[in-house]
Amino acid sequence: MAISPPHPLDPLTPQEISATAQHVRKAFPDSEAYFRVITLAEPPKEEMMVFLDAEHEGQPVGKRPARLATVQVFFGAKRDSEHFYELKVNVDSGEIVHKEQLAGRHPHVDGNDMVKTETACLNDPRVQAAIKDMQLPDGAVVKIEPWTYATDGMNDMSQKITMCYFYMRLLDHPDANHYAYPLDLCVEMSGSAEVLKIYYLPASASGGPTTNATPYDRSKIFGAEIEYHPDVAPPRRTTTKPYHVSQPEGPSFATRGNLVQWEKWHIRVGFNYREGLTLHDVRYDGHSLFYRLSLSEMFVPYGDPRTPYARKAAFDLGNDGAGCNANNLQLGCDCLGHIKYFDGWHVTSSGDAIKIPNAVCCHEVDDGILWKHTNFRTGNGVVVRSRVLVLQTIITVSNYEYIFAFHFGMDASLQYEVRATGIVSTVPIPVGGAVPFGTTVAPGVMAPYHQHLFCLRIDPAVGGWRNSLLVEESHPLPVDNAQPPHNTTTIPNPFRIGYTTRGDIVDRECGLALDHTVNRVFKIVNEAVLNPVTNTPIAYKLTPYYSQLLLADASSYHAKRSEFAAHPVWVTRYHDDELFASGKHTMQSLGGEGIASWIDGRKHGSSSPSASSVRNEDIVVWHTFGSTHNPRVEDWPVMPCEKMSVGLKPVNFFTRNPAMDVRPSCQAVNRSVLVDGEAGCHGNGGDGQVMENGVVVADAQNGHGSGALFE
Amino acid sequence: MAISPPHPLDPLTPQEISATAQHVRKAFPDSEAYFRVITLAEPPKEEMMVFLDAEHEGQPVGKRPARLATVQVFFGAKRDSEHFYELKVNVDSGEIVHKEQLAGRHPHVDGNDMVKTETACLNDPRVQAAIKDMQLPDGAVVKIEPWTYATDGMNDMSQKITMCYFYMRLLDHPDANHYAYPLDLCVEMSGSAEVLKIYYLPASASGGPTTNATPYDRSKIFGAEIEYHPDVAPPRRTTTKPYHVSQPEGPSFATRGNLVQWEKWHIRVGFNYREGLTLHDVRYDGHSLFYRLSLSEMFVPYGDPRTPYARKAAFDLGNDGAGCNANNLQLGCDCLGHIKYFDGWHVTSSGDAIKIPNAVCCHEVDDGILWKHTNFRTGNGVVVRSRVLVLQTIITVSNYEYIFAFHFGMDASLQYEVRATGIVSTVPIPVGGAVPFGTTVAPGVMAPYHQHLFCLRIDPAVGGWRNSLLVEESHPLPVDNAQPPHNTTTIPNPFRIGYTTRGDIVDRECGLALDHTVNRVFKIVNEAVLNPVTNTPIAYKLTPYYSQLLLADASSYHAKRSEFAAHPVWVTRYHDDELFASGKHTMQSLGGEGIASWIDGRKHGSSSPSASSVRNEDIVVWHTFGSTHNPRVEDWPVMPCEKMSVGLKPVNFFTRNPAMDVRPSCQAVNRSVLVDGEAGCHGNGGDGQVMENGVVVADAQNGHGSGALFE
Repeated sequence: MAISPPHPLDPLTPQEISATAQHVRKAFPDSEAYFRVITLAEPPKEEMMVFLDAEHEGQPVGKRPARLATVQVFFGAKRDSEHFYELKVNVDSGEIVHKEQLAGRHPHVDGNDMVKTETACLNDPRVQAAIKDMQLPDGAVVKIEPWTYATDGMNDMSQKITMCYFYMRLLDHPDANHYAYPLDLCVEMSGSAEVLKIYYLPASASGGPTTNATPYDRSKIFGAEIEYHPDVAPPRRTTTKPYHVSQPEGPSFATRGNLVQWEKWHIRVGFNYREGLTLHDVRYDGHSLFYRLSLSEMFVPYGDPRTPYARKAAFDLGNDGAGCNANNLQLGCDCLGHIKYFDGWHVTSSGDAIKIPNAVCCHEVDDGILWKHTNFRTGNGVVVRSRVLVLQTIITVSNYEYIFAFHFGMDASLQYEVRATGIVSTVPIPVGGAVPFGTTVAPGVMAPYHQHLFCLRIDPAVGGWRNSLLVEESHPLPVDNAQPPHNTTTIPNPFRIGYTTRGDIVDRECGLALDHTVNRVFKIVNEAVLNPVTNTPIAYKLTPYYSQLLLADASSYHAKRSEFAAHPVWVTRYHDDELFASGKHTMQSLGGEGIASWIDGRKHGSSSPSASSVRNEDIVVWHTFGSTHNPRVEDWPVMPCEKMSVGLKPVNFFTRNPAMDVRPSCQAVNRSVLVDGEAGCHGNGGDGQVMENGVVVADAQNGHGSGALFE
Repeated sequence: MAISPPHPLDPLTPQEISATAQHVRKAFPDSEAYFRVITLAEPPKEEMMVFLDAEHEGQPVGKRPARLATVQVFFGAKRDSEHFYELKVNVDSGEIVHKEQLAGRHPHVDGNDMVKTETACLNDPRVQAAIKDMQLPDGAVVKIEPWTYATDGMNDMSQKITMCYFYMRLLDHPDANHYAYPLDLCVEMSGSAEVLKIYYLPASASGGPTTNATPYDRSKIFGAEIEYHPDVAPPRRTTTKPYHVSQPEGPSFATRGNLVQWEKWHIRVGFNYREGLTLHDVRYDGHSLFYRLSLSEMFVPYGDPRTPYARKAAFDLGNDGAGCNANNLQLGCDCLGHIKYFDGWHVTSSGDAIKIPNAVCCHEVDDGILWKHTNFRTGNGVVVRSRVLVLQTIITVSNYEYIFAFHFGMDASLQYEVRATGIVSTVPIPVGGAVPFGTTVAPGVMAPYHQHLFCLRIDPAVGGWRNSLLVEESHPLPVDNAQPPHNTTTIPNPFRIGYTTRGDIVDRECGLALDHTVNRVFKIVNEAVLNPVTNTPIAYKLTPYYSQLLLADASSYHAKRSEFAAHPVWVTRYHDDELFASGKHTMQSLGGEGIASWIDGRKHGSSSPSASSVRNEDIVVWHTFGSTHNPRVEDWPVMPCEKMSVGLKPVNFFTRNPAMDVRPSCQAVNRSVLVDGEAGCHGNGGDGQVMENGVVVADAQNGHGSGALFE
């Protein structure tokens, strides 16, 4: 049921989307509107702070922030960047609050356009001739994978370009794996679906594109081993027995509209076409923690230096959209147990709301032991299990899948987990050939090296709206005969084993490096709120994922376009319009408009020096992480998930372990089943004694507590 | 049921333990034997290679390796290091193969001795007077935590010393948390349970021990918030609903004796008093992967530089034993689902076998998605769930708990996960006081900074007995106008985005550093076996856990004793007697006998240079990892698990994803439950269209495949 009125942070309802489209049509009656985006323009944070403070204090919320929509639309029949506009529209009143021509910009990928481009490409007689020249095997069905064009400085950027890579299917099944058959051909298509260039792909490591077709090498024809779909894949193993999660009293969470409440957590689920799942106003046990958590951007540059492959570098959020490419999650397939789904909503070109069904799922998982202690004196153990709430979305971006999930812990910690799966991008290579920037995953099939670089945007509200970033390290105390370094008082360290922490609060916006060798820890602190036990500022720390950053040279377009990939941690001053770490418009972007540029602008620009201050201010912390993915044969034909995980944990925020009050785990509730086996069949060797936790007890089979030797 | 005869890698049976004790008594009839250890002396690897090759080829195994036991025993009434011996005994014939006096050595902690030491300490009139001087509250029950003595160079090492730290319980319950009440007192006890020294603990950060008692500060008396046992802890949350794992057809694993077979994995479970769980002859789908996997050692040094705290540094394996301190795992508490337990066996001082019941558990868990791909053209998704086999043991070492688990994946990868939980060690501090090397977790209760450093021993047999270690990094290709660095051929890189890998095989034994900034990867390769697809040596790679190493100065006893803590990765030549990274005898050790010393000995010793060669040899790879644990208030009174995880993954070992043949996940098998909710209650905005994976389809509610726009 839609909550009425919507919470200011709720995504636009389908009714609001349609109403917005109507408002736009009414405001611009003479221009045919071709809609690309109608999405919530979140209220200014200054307004939301007032609203949320009142809401959580149980006060009247006063004037609600206006419901505003961000609209991206082509006006007129020509859908080029000259006719591309962004509007801000008051959803209720219809007022056009803002209108901006996005000259030189291109919107995110348009599925309709892609179909048109593919069809036009395949129907082009020159392309058909080029296909014929490859002398494909009988029964080959040619498939095109259209790729957005990653700027390489070689083309006029005002025109949208689509790179069409060619594959074929040999099996007569729509889900046969055409990625096993990359073809030599490449066609560049214009924004208006015209063929611009046709050429054949490079064959050697140092080669370039050619105009000469090579007849298809028949030794590259595979059997079912390259298939993944059950209709066509080889027989499957039958050894895996069913595994059910049952929750006889239902889930422990409750939802009301987009609000999820679970085990002291309070989370507002957001969703938009671009970022997909977003989280808002995240609290634990009434304490404010985060204003907004989101994947800000991701970049997937390929390391194959050859033309045209240097143009393979995808901004999967800015170019494609994690929201509009979300999978329709299937009950019993993507998760186990009791599952609640949230739909997303997007807009058709004609301005209708369109549902993205089951785009987000919410469910619980058991995560083993949360805490345990056994008193070795009494043998009495207390075990508490870790239940985790998962909010998950899965996206398909052509060949790849990404699984994005926030995991909430009972101990007030949370994890953001990314799993990369799906099919590696493949290019043709001669049988027996090898290149130093890719892996031959099957004869004639090369999977180029590439990187997946994610940027998690953490908009904290740790105990309030003003936070700072403390960078803390653990260092040895000086040995006694050494000079004390700055910042330490002289503490005797005669045995040379003492260590302590030292920390600095970051004063100005910047990028920061990881360093596990000094246990560098990034703490988001609220300097105005001291923990009553430790007398130190309350904090949440970032547990980063250690990974290599961008390999492309700093002078490359890749680097200029993905500024966030230059540092693993960034801290910036909050601005309402700084959600996307590579800028708002990534499609064929030229760079110079991401996180580093914002910082530079404020540092060297006309704004006052205090604009760069991030101490006791409304700040945003960004974490860039990912993987340098040099494919393995084991990633073929579908890769097992590669997991990456980032944590946020309280540090001297609470006054004790927030999960102390979780009920101990017991068999009466959990009903596990003993597997009979040989173990335990030997008689006890001694006189009925057994040993537990280092202590000899009379007979542990009768349970604990029988041999309290230390009492 | 005991398998007869035991497999050569099976732990000693209780019958073998008793028989060995009899053999020893018979061989030394004039000496009273006080046994500390009777454990399997694993057969020499050279013999086992022959045996295992025959066993797996289905050939007659020929002569079985002899069953040998390692025995540690005191002969005579005096249990000091002069009377401490190690024997090697033929279990079947009774022959004493080897006898060695362990002069200057001390065995692992003896629970009986500890009880005797505590009792003697508490009964000593001087100690009683010292307790009285502290003027404890009425009803206080004094508890002693005995600690092994970490060498600091201040004491004669020939005598065993036990450090007794004092606590009190105020509640009249045996499981009340005495760690909340650390007392000022410290008593040093001799190996023969005599009081050596009595003093009060330091109060300030730069202070030392004193002889002046301070009356107990009554403001340090807490309520139930510091308790964890359900009998005495505050009321618990009641919001967590039951969560069951049911496996209607039983588990997917089968065991025969200590052999576990599961989803193509073949694993022999080992167990001993010291390392606890060990794994042997690990294979996947008939391929040899690892000869032996084990936690070799762990070291927990504290960063509090004051006397006597500099002596807090525990080798939890060498001093205490992960096996003999294993928890008796409880059905439905420590794990969910269908669980098989393995018992361990140890020996009493009188030579009887004693059972360590349920020391290891074996069960399956669901780990979310293993791989997924959705064909966006057809909307058809194939999802495969990740089932994981867990082999787990949990140990209690006084206040701390460690959960050690090997996780086996269907994709032939494995993870070694460590969780640290339990109660942080506490020391007294004046109310309102603070020190820079610890956290005040409650008024008057300080938890000193410390480190947990683990060393995983990986004895590989990747595709055979001779392996090498390849250290590989990802580096940008030189930009076109730069000089190519060594090792790269000139590959055009006009767009400055190309990258490639370069690797070196390690020739000599050494320690190596991690470097995520260059994506440094450690691959255990078999140079003699090429992958038929990639034409490169088959490999398993180590996915390290990035962590700070030892903070104690290299000149300290801590550093000398924990040589393994100097580098995160080591490679050594295999030797039968090099199982323990800090040497065989860690109790009050002086250093100079761990992994670095072995390497040094072979490098600079009399052995031939080839003794240090680790290329195409029988090698061992060691990974040191852990945590710098600067306690949080949230770690109090029982800390939520801190997880650390290390991975081993095939890299171009197989010819495709080994989990391709896992059956797709489906609701018919998995039986998840839809949680009703508001989502989905809005009508579709458009004409029944929905969007999935970026494609508009007619109606996703009817399942996939309805709108194959791209076909």
